[in-house]
Amino acid sequence: MANPLFAPEVKHLIRENSSSGLKNFCESLNPVTVADTLCEEDFTVAEVWQVLGQTEVKTQASIFEYFPKKWQDQLIAGTGRPHIARLIEQMSHDDRVDLLRRLDANVAEALLRLVDEANRKDIAELFRYEENTIGSLMTTDYAWLPVHLTASEALSRLRQQAPDSETIYYIYILDETSRKLLGMVSLRDLILTSPQTPINKLMKVDLVSVHVDDPKEIAADILRKFDFLAIPVIDRDNRLVGIVTHDDIIDLIEAEATKAIHEQGGVGDILDSYMVASFFQVWRKRTFWLSCLFLAEMLTYNALTIFEDALEKIVVLKYFIALCIATGGNSGTQAATLVTRALALGEIGTKDWLRVLRKEMVMGIAMGTVLCGIGLIRATFVSRERLVYSDTYIAVNQWLFMLTLGIGVGLICLCGTIIGSMLPLVFKRMKIDPALASSPFVSTFVDVTGIVLFFSVAKLFLL
Amino acid sequence: MANPLFAPEVKHLIRENSSSGLKNFCESLNPVTVADTLCEEDFTVAEVWQVLGQTEVKTQASIFEYFPKKWQDQLIAGTGRPHIARLIEQMSHDDRVDLLRRLDANVAEALLRLVDEANRKDIAELFRYEENTIGSLMTTDYAWLPVHLTASEALSRLRQQAPDSETIYYIYILDETSRKLLGMVSLRDLILTSPQTPINKLMKVDLVSVHVDDPKEIAADILRKFDFLAIPVIDRDNRLVGIVTHDDIIDLIEAEATKAIHEQGGVGDILDSYMVASFFQVWRKRTFWLSCLFLAEMLTYNALTIFEDALEKIVVLKYFIALCIATGGNSGTQAATLVTRALALGEIGTKDWLRVLRKEMVMGIAMGTVLCGIGLIRATFVSRERLVYSDTYIAVNQWLFMLTLGIGVGLICLCGTIIGSMLPLVFKRMKIDPALASSPFVSTFVDVTGIVLFFSVAKLFLL
Repeated sequence: MANPLFAPEVKHLIRENSSSGLKNFCESLNPVTVADTLCEEDFTVAEVWQVLGQTEVKTQASIFEYFPKKWQDQLIAGTGRPHIARLIEQMSHDDRVDLLRRLDANVAEALLRLVDEANRKDIAELFRYEENTIGSLMTTDYAWLPVHLTASEALSRLRQQAPDSETIYYIYILDETSRKLLGMVSLRDLILTSPQTPINKLMKVDLVSVHVDDPKEIAADILRKFDFLAIPVIDRDNRLVGIVTHDDIIDLIEAEATKAIHEQGGVGDILDSYMVASFFQVWRKRTFWLSCLFLAEMLTYNALTIFEDALEKIVVLKYFIALCIATGGNSGTQAATLVTRALALGEIGTKDWLRVLRKEMVMGIAMGTVLCGIGLIRATFVSRERLVYSDTYIAVNQWLFMLTLGIGVGLICLCGTIIGSMLPLVFKRMKIDPALASSPFVSTFVDVTGIVLFFSVAKLFLL
Repeated sequence: MANPLFAPEVKHLIRENSSSGLKNFCESLNPVTVADTLCEEDFTVAEVWQVLGQTEVKTQASIFEYFPKKWQDQLIAGTGRPHIARLIEQMSHDDRVDLLRRLDANVAEALLRLVDEANRKDIAELFRYEENTIGSLMTTDYAWLPVHLTASEALSRLRQQAPDSETIYYIYILDETSRKLLGMVSLRDLILTSPQTPINKLMKVDLVSVHVDDPKEIAADILRKFDFLAIPVIDRDNRLVGIVTHDDIIDLIEAEATKAIHEQGGVGDILDSYMVASFFQVWRKRTFWLSCLFLAEMLTYNALTIFEDALEKIVVLKYFIALCIATGGNSGTQAATLVTRALALGEIGTKDWLRVLRKEMVMGIAMGTVLCGIGLIRATFVSRERLVYSDTYIAVNQWLFMLTLGIGVGLICLCGTIIGSMLPLVFKRMKIDPALASSPFVSTFVDVTGIVLFFSVAKLFLL
């Protein structure tokens, strides 16, 4: 949402060396807008630091967080380490850990040595958690209070804590010595109640929380379902160790969708955005998948050789290989897509396989019937000179050929649907990512089936 | 997150006819958990109303909102209209409009007549906005204040308004007569500042807002980028008409991802969840797409007949039709997937077509080279008896056949990549949903290209 007018204005302020103008630019606009402006146009790293340098480190940090990763890396290389250490001290607790994870281990260590002790401890704490766990997603920057206060005491304590961010809206109530999570009050409830109300009367105790070692997706599932601003994260002893906030969940849901779409498109897992992803890495992933699929598709050659007799004898069949394969691939992809997405959203699980199978069998028959009809009609348009046996040039019976194409296509559609719907469930059961069963993989699987079905029907009716 | 123990317990309370037990169940748990419990096990509609009837209508409404649509419809049919009217008065402003839109027009009108005037006016207001606009997504339930107050006056006014929901955290500052949006203060800032601070010193004026007639996606894009809890929605005269909240955006992002995935899988736009979607509607959509793709794939027949001479003369070619087609389809799908997703996330636009083309051409060459190599190797494994001309049984030159397969496959990969990357951009330019250009559609397009390329190379080298 960078206003296109900001960039020339900032350029002008840089030329004029106007400290106050640049300070005002950094402080009066939303940090997202500032970051957007400074990375969209071709500012140099030195110029960006010149602009940011006019404001205090806290504001710098809030802007810095919204730069794309590549820019962040360049900016870090373009200034002194003590400066970066001050920045890290002011960054949000989860974002700075992401940043340090991304940096070269030596650089990260050198930077950490310059960070003050409290922040260094907090970073070390979050660093412990493995990627893909809720621990790697959470922030330790939350508001908490002991249980024995009244609403007005709670408010004045909060004023002292003055938490940095919007995480002030949910306040967790902890046992002071054990840090065990006892309950939660919302800032709304604190404001609306009378000042003398004790917070243990006000707090919710039926809390939905997540475990720090759980996979990230669980946090997303909960926040999607309950409309919370944040979810408390606890350790094995029910101690509060952090919170996961709504904005990180939005990013996670987005990233999950991209991953699902990429896997479905046979691209593998490309996390960086299209224009900035490394060419070599993208090439490696795409080539890997294309080659795997290419090798798998070689099975179609073998399937065709099995039906060599029919293929060589009945001239017309080879012209329909492509159509049969595509029908299988499309019906398989449809079913796999629906089932994979339903699995991802938790609408179904592997235990529902029988219900899915029944549903998709009926669907496959209902769709196959329509395609069978179209196939029957299409068969009547095949020119007579192709409807012959290659060795004798005797005509193939047109009615039987119509039946071959119609029934062949119908069966392929039915089988494609069944295989496509079952494969993601089988993958899930085998603890393989079911998204891999969508699109290209299932197509390859069904292509061979399509050939086998079509030629089997052809042999039955025409040989 | 329904605890599996709740359902039997509730069943027991129903049998015991324990009003206080059921009331406690409804009021002590999160509404999501209550709704989950009551719809997961096989409770009857009458039983659900018996449970909900023990608590006040406001709590009923907050639970009712979390029932799946199908259940909501059944529950509405299972109680008196005056009861539903009271429920509607207490529901969130956006959810109740969604509900009324879904109901039969006569039922909706009859219900509306029973709703009190203020709520009826509010519903009519939101009803005006077309689906897919921000107006249809927003709620009119927001907190606002005039500009001339101090922080402590603001807080006591808020206590009087006592807004229903978490929308209290962002308070919009309006001109009292024109309702024009002047700025915003957060509850956090109101709490942390000294009580005498005038709110016009405290408020942010550089607000990011959306227009009520804009498409929904714009609200999602903004909330994804800025980590707001809500975005103000204004009309043409800059008057505040509503807000869009983070939880509705999460649902929207989720639904957008499902739509993209379904379109990519050639399923069409199935919005209901897998297990509850109407069989007939799903059948209609899937059959429609399968039939369209089937008809389009018939072009492969025509493409093959163009190369009838080569196909009939060189025995081996027909065995590689499937492999060639699949290679084109897979490389096309990859490129289309990446470009479509990048378009959806706003990482690229149609203006970037030349950069995308250049990138994908280089990528297509780099990937095609690898596939060409695999193709060359694969060609050496073809049995001698198939490497002949069908009319003379003279052997085909094996080196030339290797070149045919290698170069053919490489070219198909390159063309698939180029077509796959350009098609979504062309669609976008023509104002067609670019997601339609992914997977099955692009495959069909590329299948024909694959046949033409492979047989052209074959004719060049082998005929």
